[in-house]
Amino acid sequence: MTEALIHALEREILADIPLARAMQLQIAAYQPDGLTLLAPLAPNINDKGCAFGGSLASLLTLSCWALVVLRLRAAGEDCDVYVQDSQLRYLAPVWGEIRAESRLAEGESWDGFFAMLGSRSKSRLRILAGVADGSGKLATTLDARFVALRREAKSSAA
Amino acid sequence: MTEALIHALEREILADIPLARAMQLQIAAYQPDGLTLLAPLAPNINDKGCAFGGSLASLLTLSCWALVVLRLRAAGEDCDVYVQDSQLRYLAPVWGEIRAESRLAEGESWDGFFAMLGSRSKSRLRILAGVADGSGKLATTLDARFVALRREAKSSAA
Repeated sequence: MTEALIHALEREILADIPLARAMQLQIAAYQPDGLTLLAPLAPNINDKGCAFGGSLASLLTLSCWALVVLRLRAAGEDCDVYVQDSQLRYLAPVWGEIRAESRLAEGESWDGFFAMLGSRSKSRLRILAGVADGSGKLATTLDARFVALRREAKSSAA
Repeated sequence: MTEALIHALEREILADIPLARAMQLQIAAYQPDGLTLLAPLAPNINDKGCAFGGSLASLLTLSCWALVVLRLRAAGEDCDVYVQDSQLRYLAPVWGEIRAESRLAEGESWDGFFAMLGSRSKSRLRILAGVADGSGKLATTLDARFVALRREAKSSAA
């Protein structure tokens, strides 16, 4: 069930977002509390030979977005999920394959997220993500807020 | 002279950064105090039919980076320029061509930037950028810090 959801989401991302295809993104792992995206360096390289900041920003943001989307789908919720704002820190260059890992920010809970979604048909959540360099140290970090909006709520509000 | 620098930088970006080619980025305008990047919607679309957040983040960041690089080159400085951190706000969807415009943040000055570069061979600068929606209202904003490092300084430090 979960495997099917992961593969379906990966196919959708690659089909619907040309830049995800250009980055050669794949969903490498998903657990209820974290998601890992992978992308090879070659299509994501910059003028200095390391990972392009735009690829890092995109993959970090998508690793968070995909985590929220999969949690919602696994719970049978039909929502649109949007990124609201984010903070990025580029701490060190990334010279190899890009592995973006996301998880819930401290102080956030899935129970609280789903409870608010249940009562308001809309909910918010802060997610953290990071890319490590070859030695395992964090090279790029993202701290972002996402909004989920039930599709039924959206159409009846429109 | 300036036109030649602009075209040379655009060629370099497109040659060295595969994702910039995928986004079909072009430098549309450069003045000493601001730079505009353009990209069509089609290669930068997302699953909802509007501009992909990763494309917006990439184009906003590159509009700032290119502004700093062109100012440095116009002054005869040979530097590497890195983004250090950034804050992005996604305020509204972008449904058409993406136009990312950058300018110096308040409280920053090019004179101060070049003075520090002259004395330390390294300097920092905060740049703002925005993408407007079809009606001219800001749809996405970026506030980012960049570091410029003279290449000679870098090699002698390595």
